Amino acid sequence: MTREECTLAIEGLSGQIDKYAELLVRKGLCVREGQEVVVQAPVECADFARRVVRLAYREGAGHVTVIWGDDAMARLEYENVPLEHFRHTPTWKVEQLNSLAEAGACFLFIEGSDPSALDGIDPAKPAAAAHARNTECLSFRNGMDFGKNVWCIAGAPVEAWARKVFPDCAPYEAVYRLWLAILKVARADGLDPQLDWETHNAAFEKNKGFLNDMAFDRLHYTSKNGTDLTLGLNAKGIWEGGAGRTVDGTVFFPNIPTEEVFTTPARTRVDGIVYSAMPLVHAGQIVDDFWLRFEGGRVVEYDAARGREVLRHIIETDENAAYLGECALVPKESPIHQSGLLFYNTLFDENAACHLALGFGFDECVKGFENMTKEELYEIGVNDAGNHTDFMIGSDDLSIDGVDEHGNVHPIFRNGTWAF
Amino acid sequence: MTREECTLAIEGLSGQIDKYAELLVRKGLCVREGQEVVVQAPVECADFARRVVRLAYREGAGHVTVIWGDDAMARLEYENVPLEHFRHTPTWKVEQLNSLAEAGACFLFIEGSDPSALDGIDPAKPAAAAHARNTECLSFRNGMDFGKNVWCIAGAPVEAWARKVFPDCAPYEAVYRLWLAILKVARADGLDPQLDWETHNAAFEKNKGFLNDMAFDRLHYTSKNGTDLTLGLNAKGIWEGGAGRTVDGTVFFPNIPTEEVFTTPARTRVDGIVYSAMPLVHAGQIVDDFWLRFEGGRVVEYDAARGREVLRHIIETDENAAYLGECALVPKESPIHQSGLLFYNTLFDENAACHLALGFGFDECVKGFENMTKEELYEIGVNDAGNHTDFMIGSDDLSIDGVDEHGNVHPIFRNGTWAF
Repeated sequence: MTREECTLAIEGLSGQIDKYAELLVRKGLCVREGQEVVVQAPVECADFARRVVRLAYREGAGHVTVIWGDDAMARLEYENVPLEHFRHTPTWKVEQLNSLAEAGACFLFIEGSDPSALDGIDPAKPAAAAHARNTECLSFRNGMDFGKNVWCIAGAPVEAWARKVFPDCAPYEAVYRLWLAILKVARADGLDPQLDWETHNAAFEKNKGFLNDMAFDRLHYTSKNGTDLTLGLNAKGIWEGGAGRTVDGTVFFPNIPTEEVFTTPARTRVDGIVYSAMPLVHAGQIVDDFWLRFEGGRVVEYDAARGREVLRHIIETDENAAYLGECALVPKESPIHQSGLLFYNTLFDENAACHLALGFGFDECVKGFENMTKEELYEIGVNDAGNHTDFMIGSDDLSIDGVDEHGNVHPIFRNGTWAF
Repeated sequence: MTREECTLAIEGLSGQIDKYAELLVRKGLCVREGQEVVVQAPVECADFARRVVRLAYREGAGHVTVIWGDDAMARLEYENVPLEHFRHTPTWKVEQLNSLAEAGACFLFIEGSDPSALDGIDPAKPAAAAHARNTECLSFRNGMDFGKNVWCIAGAPVEAWARKVFPDCAPYEAVYRLWLAILKVARADGLDPQLDWETHNAAFEKNKGFLNDMAFDRLHYTSKNGTDLTLGLNAKGIWEGGAGRTVDGTVFFPNIPTEEVFTTPARTRVDGIVYSAMPLVHAGQIVDDFWLRFEGGRVVEYDAARGREVLRHIIETDENAAYLGECALVPKESPIHQSGLLFYNTLFDENAACHLALGFGFDECVKGFENMTKEELYEIGVNDAGNHTDFMIGSDDLSIDGVDEHGNVHPIFRNGTWAF
């Protein structure tokens, strides 16, 4: 395609991109009359961010705060500023995120970033920055964790990202193709994306329902790649997926796309070995062909053909970074898997296959979490750490069995997809 | 020019644009080792802002905070949010600007905005937002007003602005031409812009020095267009222009470009008639071919061939809006004048010709202002009003005489340029 053809082709998507923006505002954020809305976006996604903000006001938003970001600026900061700086979040940023959360804002995070933006950067710096934000911006973090604030993460193309996903295309064509791919895998390529998401959510309800009714004691993962992992589930554990729900009953989609049914495993009851099925992209750096061996929940051994140092940083972020916080089930019919694309972005790639995450767990995956302290949730088995890093383990032949408290075994996955 | 040719032509400017960025960092901001640097930029100027930030770190900046802005988002906010909201600055924004100022930051404001961005918006909203920021972000405002923080305003093209300045060009060509124009009028088109600014400042020092040494009692303006105006100067008045200086002695350029030597006239000692030399652009509206007649400092009669109502609105803003707050001397050799362009932006247009301003005066143009109250400064002759509106009076044949307390006459301007 010529540059002119691509420009015209992207203009031709304008109506569908507006439908996608409307999906985010209505199904992702559920904007209420008079509500504060926060939109975080890369500067290169200005056109898309403006569409979202226009629609948010049309839905009745009282005020929209836009928080711009830029990969190139972040890289310059990491290149030039010493580690010490990143151990704390600037006071104004803490005040910004906390005051907006306390005002009842909903948060849209538009993701579009160069997967190689931080190549060669000391991973301790972005890790420290993320840890500082998670521990210092408490109203912001707890507001989302404890179902007070609605939030949604969704994607929009930036050129460097598009070029990574479509390395054989000219930059402008890559951007066009990434738009097509995002609309497709976000189930926003049809005539009525909002209705399609209601249908999509019905499947989530069925799968979550089965898992929650069965209340398995543990899962057992096996694959020809060598994976043989037993993963304990919490007694009061809940499987989540699809729509989330705030304490006041607002039903929203925190991730668009989302294809996973997930829970938080029992922190200390993970044993065995698990092999990666896809590369892990962490803060712009890639870890590939890796494995982790667990004992009593903790990673006790690991290796990677590529990016071992990055993996080490993830595991050593803090005391609990070597424990799991999430296990998620994704069938191989997922549109992300079907696209055959590696997006170099967790929001997309984690929906390509079954995965686990090192780091903090999800409080809302425990019954009655609203009335428990962080300490109680930790005791029950919800990991607490400064980070949360997904990695894909869903090979095409993956089998998962559910084992109940009496030792009865029920098939959950066979050959990489739902088996009940 | 074709789009491809313009893309290549702008790429060809890359080295010169870097020289311009370096000029801003070294002569505008005077970045010190370890210093906090703040760069405010439109999202559309991301490429230029990144160059500035890269150079700021190279100069030793300890950390750079980037504050992004977007005209289209500002317009959506003003369109949809009630006036009441703008009467206060968000607490995090107050904390952001004040904490950065208190940390000793220098501030670069990259201006690139659509002159029509706020067409049709209730002017009370941006006015309330500006007033709130000025009164609530005190460390930030005082830090710049009282010479604690270094600051610099400079321009970079955005497409909507470029199209306004070059309405007959295709958008991409307009952007290229606006880059050329900005580099030219900012005296950043030569081999060594930093040296050119040292030379430029030497001329400022000479002209300010003469005017301050002579300590004229009044100026007398005459032109064939009918202008015959006597303008009293304050006994403790100071002529300013070119570089500014912080209390700790840092010499910096607060405006790039700048061509004016200016002071605040005696509020009640302006008499005679003055004719406009260029159109006045006020909040997106144009006043052209106008004259003002003063008695005892006050505008007592006026007319305009175009935009008389806008002029009336300016003069009647408040009690003191009919008095002058500034007189500025700009020779017709000014590169802005030579460019023949109307930039629709005060940073540029006020440097095209001698001008006056209706509205508030400048405290720092009075000796010892740091130890005087607003009331004392008003008594001395510094006008105090809610607005400040520049208008150009520098015709090509303008003569200005300085008259001392004994009635001796000294030529200052002849035929629109310096005459001493």
